[in-house]
Amino acid sequence: MRRADPSLPVTGYDRDPAAVTEGLARGALTAGASSAEEAVRDATLVVLAIPVDRIPDALERVGRALAPGAVVTDVGSAKGAVVASGETTLGERFVGGHPMAGSERHGMGAADERLFEGAWWILTPTASTSSAAYGTVSGMVTTLGATPVAVGPLAHDELVARLSHLPQITASALVEVATDTDSRDALLGLAAGGFRDVTRIAASDPDLWVAVLRSNREAVLKALEGFQGRLSGVARLLEDRSWEELGAFFARSKAARLDLFAKPDLGGQPITLSLLIPDRPGVLAEVTTAAGSLGANIEDLRIFHSTEGGRGRLEVVIAGAEAAEALGSDLERLGYHVDRGAHD
Amino acid sequence: MRRADPSLPVTGYDRDPAAVTEGLARGALTAGASSAEEAVRDATLVVLAIPVDRIPDALERVGRALAPGAVVTDVGSAKGAVVASGETTLGERFVGGHPMAGSERHGMGAADERLFEGAWWILTPTASTSSAAYGTVSGMVTTLGATPVAVGPLAHDELVARLSHLPQITASALVEVATDTDSRDALLGLAAGGFRDVTRIAASDPDLWVAVLRSNREAVLKALEGFQGRLSGVARLLEDRSWEELGAFFARSKAARLDLFAKPDLGGQPITLSLLIPDRPGVLAEVTTAAGSLGANIEDLRIFHSTEGGRGRLEVVIAGAEAAEALGSDLERLGYHVDRGAHD
Repeated sequence: MRRADPSLPVTGYDRDPAAVTEGLARGALTAGASSAEEAVRDATLVVLAIPVDRIPDALERVGRALAPGAVVTDVGSAKGAVVASGETTLGERFVGGHPMAGSERHGMGAADERLFEGAWWILTPTASTSSAAYGTVSGMVTTLGATPVAVGPLAHDELVARLSHLPQITASALVEVATDTDSRDALLGLAAGGFRDVTRIAASDPDLWVAVLRSNREAVLKALEGFQGRLSGVARLLEDRSWEELGAFFARSKAARLDLFAKPDLGGQPITLSLLIPDRPGVLAEVTTAAGSLGANIEDLRIFHSTEGGRGRLEVVIAGAEAAEALGSDLERLGYHVDRGAHD
Repeated sequence: MRRADPSLPVTGYDRDPAAVTEGLARGALTAGASSAEEAVRDATLVVLAIPVDRIPDALERVGRALAPGAVVTDVGSAKGAVVASGETTLGERFVGGHPMAGSERHGMGAADERLFEGAWWILTPTASTSSAAYGTVSGMVTTLGATPVAVGPLAHDELVARLSHLPQITASALVEVATDTDSRDALLGLAAGGFRDVTRIAASDPDLWVAVLRSNREAVLKALEGFQGRLSGVARLLEDRSWEELGAFFARSKAARLDLFAKPDLGGQPITLSLLIPDRPGVLAEVTTAAGSLGANIEDLRIFHSTEGGRGRLEVVIAGAEAAEALGSDLERLGYHVDRGAHD
């Protein structure tokens, strides 16, 4: 943030005072605080970057000291419980977030000013989120070089259970199966590149992962159940010698894998969609999550309230004509009246 | 091989004549043959590089045309059925092999003269294998820049089931679980690096993998069963909220993963172990697989038969004093008398 705007004041607090000292020394912070309450007192935007199971407690402490109008976000890897707690404590001023970037390293020593460049950053606005708060947080994301994508908190949790938490369990279980053998350890070094790739993340921080799974327990159990079902299906194909169906299984996965990282393409010319909207909560979440599930990139978003009250106008700037057209159609299907135009 | 020895004659046969033409054009071959029988007629060493389920048939065809004293090896990824068939057809002249290198690409266009440099190459000698045949094949492996390691055929199959075949099934099943979601495809592009690593091999050739699993069906089913058991264990920890045990699971896997690729260290000064051996088959396999399971690198191996018959002497050159000492102790435990000395 400070690289993008060297005049930006950033106050830091960490339970380890050495982290604050190092943050100051590196120029990431302009001031250190000796408590969370002190750190947030004059803030307009607060970012909680702590283990996900500690966020609800921290939200209460922060909420007591927060200035009116200040916005709070977090970077926790599960969102259901965090967002519920954030909205109870802070109402429309809380916007859940989850950057899709990071490594198995942690602490100030692993800080990297380019970590978020080109990454996706999920935001989880709900019916309660104010458009101003969403704008503040998505502005921070853009400043960091990342692309905000809006998803509902529970859809997020299901998604990361499948894309992140289940693969983590899998990698660790594969290592256990590989090392629990009568052959001596030395032979395991024979593993070729495939095994190295598949199990690389098994070297991640165990405590971090317990906190993550704890916060996303239900979605992970559901994903595990689905995965076990597929493995049983593969075992059945092997038992029955159904080689053709086994080939179809591998072919489907190959096609899906090759397809997976071709999307989403969130580039292109900015197009403005203008919507007449009822002046009620929930509109913002409906529009942003519709864009998110299309892989459409919201570049800007403004709400104009009618002076008579009761209704207003929402302007959404989308990157790319094709994405804008798809979102426009989706919003019309949801009952909105949509005007399309090139961005001025 | 021809880079190491430009005078080496290499005859190639492929069911696709274009592959032979390209092999000749690239200088990998010095002659092309129009049948497997024709290709092997004058060979001293035959390498079968074909889908693993076709090897038994090919061995019969090759066996009919083979010159006396010629040695045959293969590069199939499962060894139990192949070695059994090779020994039935060719007796002591067959040595099973499996290079721990390769990629998801195939065909002459993907040929790479440095593919095997620095890689492990498993050889699977048995009680029937002659030391001359073993020496010929391990010499080829060394010439290609790889390191031969001897393992029993069934131990090999169990090992690759855990280190290669199970991870392949896992990667494909993870892709299926990830893409079978109500969220639209675009969101899957949000997957971070962990998911990319874990599922990279899901893009491999489906037909190849069916052939591989088909040839190693029993060992793969056993590995799958063990893996499913671990996943059920993790699910139980999540259900019971046993966070401490879940942390222990991740910590164990982390330690094992970090340890895994530190071994084996097959370097060091060459040491000669000299063994008095009964003149019976099986000695070579006993010694080489003992070395393999220790991760000890056999640099050279010679058998001196007694002129009176009935017994002889085996010299094994091992890289590294520590590995040589460990192997010596293992062999003494197996009942051999072992003399140790620096290699002359």
